[in-house]
Amino acid sequence: MIICKVVGHVWATKKEEHLNGQKLMVVRETENGGGTYVAADLVGAGIGELVLVISGSTARMALGGNNTPSDMAIVGIIDNLEMETT
Amino acid sequence: MIICKVVGHVWATKKEEHLNGQKLMVVRETENGGGTYVAADLVGAGIGELVLVISGSTARMALGGNNTPSDMAIVGIIDNLEMETT
Amino acid sequence: MIICKVVGHVWATKKEEHLNGQKLMVVRETENGGGTYVAADLVGAGIGELVLVISGSTARMALGGNNTPSDMAIVGIIDNLEMETT
Amino acid sequence: MIICKVVGHVWATKKEEHLNGQKLMVVRETENGGGTYVAADLVGAGIGELVLVISGSTARMALGGNNTPSDMAIVGIIDNLEMETT
Amino acid sequence: MIICKVVGHVWATKKEEHLNGQKLMVVRETENGGGTYVAADLVGAGIGELVLVISGSTARMALGGNNTPSDMAIVGIIDNLEMETT
Repeated sequence: MIICKVVGHVWATKKEEHLNGQKLMVVRETENGGGTYVAADLVGAGIGELVLVISGSTARMALGGNNTPSDMAIVGIIDNLEMETT
Repeated sequence: MIICKVVGHVWATKKEEHLNGQKLMVVRETENGGGTYVAADLVGAGIGELVLVISGSTARMALGGNNTPSDMAIVGIIDNLEMETT
Repeated sequence: MIICKVVGHVWATKKEEHLNGQKLMVVRETENGGGTYVAADLVGAGIGELVLVISGSTARMALGGNNTPSDMAIVGIIDNLEMETT
Repeated sequence: MIICKVVGHVWATKKEEHLNGQKLMVVRETENGGGTYVAADLVGAGIGELVLVISGSTARMALGGNNTPSDMAIVGIIDNLEMETT
Repeated sequence: MIICKVVGHVWATKKEEHLNGQKLMVVRETENGGGTYVAADLVGAGIGELVLVISGSTARMALGGNNTPSDMAIVGIIDNLEMETT
């Protein structure tokens, strides 16, 4: 899992039908150089919140199965993060 | 998912048979340093459009199942993107 | 597998239900530029320990199957590591 | 999919038995900094040709199923590539 | 597949039970900036040898199936490698 901040929203009218109903958010990693991605939200996350993001087939499974065409999902809102800095 | 701009087309006459009928487009990430990839189009995207691209087994599933030899797919055309810049 | 040091903990009250009961730890690679990730712990690892971390569907499988929404897992505590340096 | 040039061959006498009969070629990405990998060839590609390369479980599936221990495959020979340069 | 040199060994007494019996070796890519990883050995590779390494679910399958918690495997010992240099 990667640690991200929710930084935006994305809208697509023309999309693969199984994306209907998914709330798509723009997330940016807080570590590892700050990659920016789009993830489907499973936990009601809002802009500015720190979240846990999963990728690949694990995201697809969490989003409901083989037909969901999303390879990233927000699966937790971080309350507390304690870590040694580099 | 990654955010890409459609920047080109690619043609391959000699190819794995299950690629027949797939429209292959060249996409370039607008974030994360701008990687360039080839993705099969599921939504009728055109050159210059901003799109959502998925990877890995999730792309293969969206393209029709285990036999499709493509690991990237365009699954949405972005109408509106709102995000904080870095 | 990647070699990581356990550097912290993360707590999320609001999370996908299948994450309940997973102990989530922050791990940092000791090689490859030191990426920082969150992994579910399977072996009782503690802060400061050197561990083996797996990713993707292999982590999900090790954590119990298709429903577990975690794509990284700690699967071993390293006792001894012998390697040529670059 | 990534765009690669075929740049070499690799031979391994001692190998996992399900690699027998696979033609293993060295490929180098023409984009994204030029990573070098080994892929099993499905389309009769030759040195110097521009090809489409897939990765992960999608490559394994294209190569014949769960038992094939290769995570990269050449699935098309590029005839024509039109793209905007950066 | 990536081309690696075997550079070391790793031992973990406390580990996920399905790792028992796996010989875990430290491998370093000879290309692509030289990433360092831990892979389970399937072919009897020794320190200093050039090997082919696979990743992800393909490694897990080669190592015996869904329960094996390793996402990298050594599947061939390279006898001969011919490639154009960059």
